[in-house]
Amino acid sequence: MKYAQTGVDYDVLDAFKRACQKAAVPTALSLAARGAAEPAAIRGESAYLVDTGDAYLAHVEEGLGTKNLVADAVLEKTGRSLYRNIGIDLVATIVNDLATCGALPLSVAMHAAAGSAEWFRDARRCADLAEGFAEGCRLAGAAWGGGETAVLSGVVDPSSAVLAGSAVGRIQPKFLRVAGDVRDGDAIVLLASRGVQTNGLSLCRAIAARLPEEYATPLDDGRTYGEALLDPSVIYAGFVEACQEAVVPLRYLVHITGHGWRKMMRIEEPFVYRIEKPPVEGALFRFLRERGPVDLKEAFATFNMGAGFAAYVRPTDVDRCLRAGGAAGYEAWVAGSVRKEGTRKAVEIVPAGIVFDAQSLRVR
Amino acid sequence: MKYAQTGVDYDVLDAFKRACQKAAVPTALSLAARGAAEPAAIRGESAYLVDTGDAYLAHVEEGLGTKNLVADAVLEKTGRSLYRNIGIDLVATIVNDLATCGALPLSVAMHAAAGSAEWFRDARRCADLAEGFAEGCRLAGAAWGGGETAVLSGVVDPSSAVLAGSAVGRIQPKFLRVAGDVRDGDAIVLLASRGVQTNGLSLCRAIAARLPEEYATPLDDGRTYGEALLDPSVIYAGFVEACQEAVVPLRYLVHITGHGWRKMMRIEEPFVYRIEKPPVEGALFRFLRERGPVDLKEAFATFNMGAGFAAYVRPTDVDRCLRAGGAAGYEAWVAGSVRKEGTRKAVEIVPAGIVFDAQSLRVR
Repeated sequence: MKYAQTGVDYDVLDAFKRACQKAAVPTALSLAARGAAEPAAIRGESAYLVDTGDAYLAHVEEGLGTKNLVADAVLEKTGRSLYRNIGIDLVATIVNDLATCGALPLSVAMHAAAGSAEWFRDARRCADLAEGFAEGCRLAGAAWGGGETAVLSGVVDPSSAVLAGSAVGRIQPKFLRVAGDVRDGDAIVLLASRGVQTNGLSLCRAIAARLPEEYATPLDDGRTYGEALLDPSVIYAGFVEACQEAVVPLRYLVHITGHGWRKMMRIEEPFVYRIEKPPVEGALFRFLRERGPVDLKEAFATFNMGAGFAAYVRPTDVDRCLRAGGAAGYEAWVAGSVRKEGTRKAVEIVPAGIVFDAQSLRVR
Repeated sequence: MKYAQTGVDYDVLDAFKRACQKAAVPTALSLAARGAAEPAAIRGESAYLVDTGDAYLAHVEEGLGTKNLVADAVLEKTGRSLYRNIGIDLVATIVNDLATCGALPLSVAMHAAAGSAEWFRDARRCADLAEGFAEGCRLAGAAWGGGETAVLSGVVDPSSAVLAGSAVGRIQPKFLRVAGDVRDGDAIVLLASRGVQTNGLSLCRAIAARLPEEYATPLDDGRTYGEALLDPSVIYAGFVEACQEAVVPLRYLVHITGHGWRKMMRIEEPFVYRIEKPPVEGALFRFLRERGPVDLKEAFATFNMGAGFAAYVRPTDVDRCLRAGGAAGYEAWVAGSVRKEGTRKAVEIVPAGIVFDAQSLRVR
């Protein structure tokens, strides 16, 4: 199976995104009257920044996608609400994007738009979602700064909800901004993920639909597919904070979500990202590959495959980076290096014999 | 007809909101480690604030509700896309909330989550939405700082989209914060709205469904019902900015949205808000009352009725407030005054003989 088979025509979305980007660019001129400015080269990055003179403010708006449909299916079948994890996932998908620019979150807001008031009648699910979101904020070191709750009948499916939100963060002092100053020979540090986190869920759902036991299907480690899919995402803001405190300059950070490992070549300048040590494949990714079946290259192009965040650092900073990350509770390792090979841009996963070229990642 | 008949059980939503608020409160403790703090009495206000020492950062997450369903119906019937106005509405609903605390927006993000990629295939609608959102940002003096575009099949209706977003703003210097320092005798300045803006749309849609010509039904000013409903909202950030520049202290600001005029008693301390000069009723509100039919009190409890924003100011500041607002292009007038009547809390619309007591506004 391929992600494209799950039915989303990205060309159409890209046309809309381009229209938005085109319309958005001139609006930055307004900032001058507010004593602020848009920093260079910020459009297309994972977070928007505003230069307020003494600091950068960071802003991210994000959605959870369709992961709550998995939680709903598991809840219906087993009576077990894993919505606490969904709450953590929702914070993770927002603040991990924010952290890629070096910003630490201050306020995170939740948006829950259900298709009917009935959706909110499940008190267990509601409490779990709220507690999970609060736990996510705690893990991110941010305040839960309000949000929006709405019923949108005629827009959202009556049995479902759109879960989304936003975060405000700050980079201070300004030199902590991670702007993409990558150089030949930089080390690629990967950070372990916990399961699929928040991407590739459409494909995961399509696979579940074809399994006789659906989400109750056991993995070879004895857990069920549904339970494993719903492991809560890792929140990487604490890694970024730990590196800042340890004065480890971060040259670039990648939140490995949509487009999977192809995201590692997100920066515009051409480099080759050579991975010698990918993560050991866990039971969930093995299951997805075997039961999809999903080709290994397609799997790396879609899922995080065990690494949810990447940091590019100077070789001389690697030890301190790993120590700082480890002390903050993150499993991190040097997985490879960045190479300058003229104008060539690619991600190479050496042990798997996989190469993604520049054309495979069209969207930033 | 009554708003409650449109099918949203707010008691269930309120239970969820309370669970969220309860879980959210302790998360503010995280801010200390970031050199920031949550200001007192901010929970329950329209915008969340973070005190960063030299300034307040403001954060709002909001949604458009179901107004785009009206635009879709008009588009389908007449071929005319009024999505430019929807884009302006979306910015308005976000930044008007932000402005109530005295914050001026810096970055506004759009979230468009459609039920199918097909939704984005209408290039006219997409371009209009993008242009309108950019125009809204321009009117708000903010940059369009990115956002999120998603297809959520199985969550959102395939023919529809959830339109939402967020804003980051700032209050600097900090004394410009509007915190609710209301006093007996303060003047109530109302600002004209443009149509229903972004609230009461469920009721408007229910009324359309019972009209033989639906949105094509003419109002007595010759325009159609659909066209009038889709007039773009007024963005009030410029009014707040003009008052700040003219050094007019704003004691409290109310964005008149859900709960209509009952919102005027949003502040916790009991006051009586006595309105002597409500707006002259326009063709759209007359139509809604007559064709609903919607009782006058219910109309004031649901719609903005011609006034989308209220400012409470010292009587001695009224002239300068009106002059500043007028120079910035806002239609504003002194509509009444705030009275201290012991522990009584009410909104009185004197010429209409309407009184809303404290019990009529349970949700903040």
